[in-house]
Amino acid sequence: MQALVYDGDVRLVDLPVPEPQAGEALLRIRLAGICGTDLHISRGYADFHGILGHEFVADVMAAPEPQWLGRRVVGEINLPCGTCAWCQAGLPRHCAARRVLGIRGKDGCLAEFITLPLANLHAVPDTVPDAFAVFTEPLAAALAILEQVHICPSSRVLVIGDGKLGLLIAQVLRLVGCDLHLVGRQPRNLDLIGARGVKVYPADGFAQAGFDVVIEVTGNPSGWQTALQAVRPRGTIVLKSTYPGRGAENPTALVVPEVTVVGSRCGPFAPALRLLARRLINPKKLISRVYPLAQAREALAYAGQRGVLKILVEMPLYESNVSVVPRAAL
Amino acid sequence: MQALVYDGDVRLVDLPVPEPQAGEALLRIRLAGICGTDLHISRGYADFHGILGHEFVADVMAAPEPQWLGRRVVGEINLPCGTCAWCQAGLPRHCAARRVLGIRGKDGCLAEFITLPLANLHAVPDTVPDAFAVFTEPLAAALAILEQVHICPSSRVLVIGDGKLGLLIAQVLRLVGCDLHLVGRQPRNLDLIGARGVKVYPADGFAQAGFDVVIEVTGNPSGWQTALQAVRPRGTIVLKSTYPGRGAENPTALVVPEVTVVGSRCGPFAPALRLLARRLINPKKLISRVYPLAQAREALAYAGQRGVLKILVEMPLYESNVSVVPRAAL
Repeated sequence: MQALVYDGDVRLVDLPVPEPQAGEALLRIRLAGICGTDLHISRGYADFHGILGHEFVADVMAAPEPQWLGRRVVGEINLPCGTCAWCQAGLPRHCAARRVLGIRGKDGCLAEFITLPLANLHAVPDTVPDAFAVFTEPLAAALAILEQVHICPSSRVLVIGDGKLGLLIAQVLRLVGCDLHLVGRQPRNLDLIGARGVKVYPADGFAQAGFDVVIEVTGNPSGWQTALQAVRPRGTIVLKSTYPGRGAENPTALVVPEVTVVGSRCGPFAPALRLLARRLINPKKLISRVYPLAQAREALAYAGQRGVLKILVEMPLYESNVSVVPRAAL
Repeated sequence: MQALVYDGDVRLVDLPVPEPQAGEALLRIRLAGICGTDLHISRGYADFHGILGHEFVADVMAAPEPQWLGRRVVGEINLPCGTCAWCQAGLPRHCAARRVLGIRGKDGCLAEFITLPLANLHAVPDTVPDAFAVFTEPLAAALAILEQVHICPSSRVLVIGDGKLGLLIAQVLRLVGCDLHLVGRQPRNLDLIGARGVKVYPADGFAQAGFDVVIEVTGNPSGWQTALQAVRPRGTIVLKSTYPGRGAENPTALVVPEVTVVGSRCGPFAPALRLLARRLINPKKLISRVYPLAQAREALAYAGQRGVLKILVEMPLYESNVSVVPRAAL
């Protein structure tokens, strides 16, 4: 099968179809998404070597439980050990020995086939098209914010960052009814979310303050100072950004205003699928381009360009499903 | 009256007794405490010029409401405007226009007299001696942790720092019944709190992890790395340290383990006085030395020495009450 591998370089290679281990299904990928983390990994972050990618929708080709055969599924990306203290404490996503699809110790989904434990699979409702289902993982990451922080209908909330995750977070938070603001650098992306009733601002000269909750999702160090200036006393900053390097922060800036910072990573798949099925989240305008797997290297390069939103990669067997649906028509 | 002033230098000077403004009482200080913040201010932190000090117990000499006359009191240190959005939202300690006793726009208590709004005063129960009552403000700051974070009897908690606030925090947290650990650099201070059933460790070579809650109260940048290494996934770091400078932190270290950081400053006086009256908090072993006001400069210098705990300054009229109670006898 073809697969997009990072082994110091990003290369499209031919590899054998993987063998499912005990408890695992063999999945044939329909459509995969490229995430900011994939870009970081392709620059050496997390020391991962292997097949890239962790956002997908797929068909179950083989499974130890027959009811899964032929199901269209998405899959959680953390593979916990199941026995350590964190797994037993109900925190399997924080298992220290976990493998993570396309990120840590487990080949990813920018390939024709992957294997994944049955426990990781979620069936996709028939009413959710592939091009929506492929957003389940990042949508779950957006929903993690609402699992961790109580954002109320009357909360005043600022999202910092107009990348694909920032826009998805704004789509989730607008459902709460909160007073929602977003600051970013890409006029086109600001227009996209502004059209959905979110108040948007260019980053240059932004100086508002007093927000109950600030979501930092720029993916680069500039967002932290904006977050500190924008959050109210005793307010909460949710950190979604990850970037390498040491930074230059004095954490005691949090002490006098008694600000809370919440690190936030992965989230729950089931409510993500419910919101997609109910059409309360419509990610179609977040798709910038769809590439065939044969052009996955080009897809990754394009995904790293400024202002580009979600790049999808379609697998050979399903090309006719997806590539006929370019962004403008979705 | 004599007063310890910082105006670029630390000096003991003669000043007129202050005039109470509308709503204020005139207080004659009995005993004052020196805090780490006073030391920072005397090195230029917070750009404060004026009389130092914000921990005290005093007698009410004049007051617009006669029931306060002659009462022995402690006083909250924040003087909010009372009308801004934060004051009206129930967050007067975060009023942007607030003055703070001995820290911002308001002369402090290392002097024979101060003025303070009646709203800031708390009567001290007769059973609480001066040398205990003077700890009300830092004890309230320790209690702020329990106002902000739900620490349970079964929580596993680490305090980083064996200074006077760290030891006071450990005294408060042991009351919760939690599994309590403290790491520090001063063998004598570790022995003090170890004798009260807290597990203590020297900082060199400390490598434990998996704590539900970590309190960072070292007052210097070294504590942050220890806190990050010690906290469990989805655990909480409470930041009590303030220090100047930029630091060198990458805040995204919080994202993958989904750690929460809570900045914590001032706390509630009423429960602090209750715990002192019930003798559930006994701060006497935290007193390193008691100086007369005439030696307040020497007191401040000594307070800055490594391993020194609380330094108290007694006022001339009350010297006989306090200076006869040296640390060993308390």
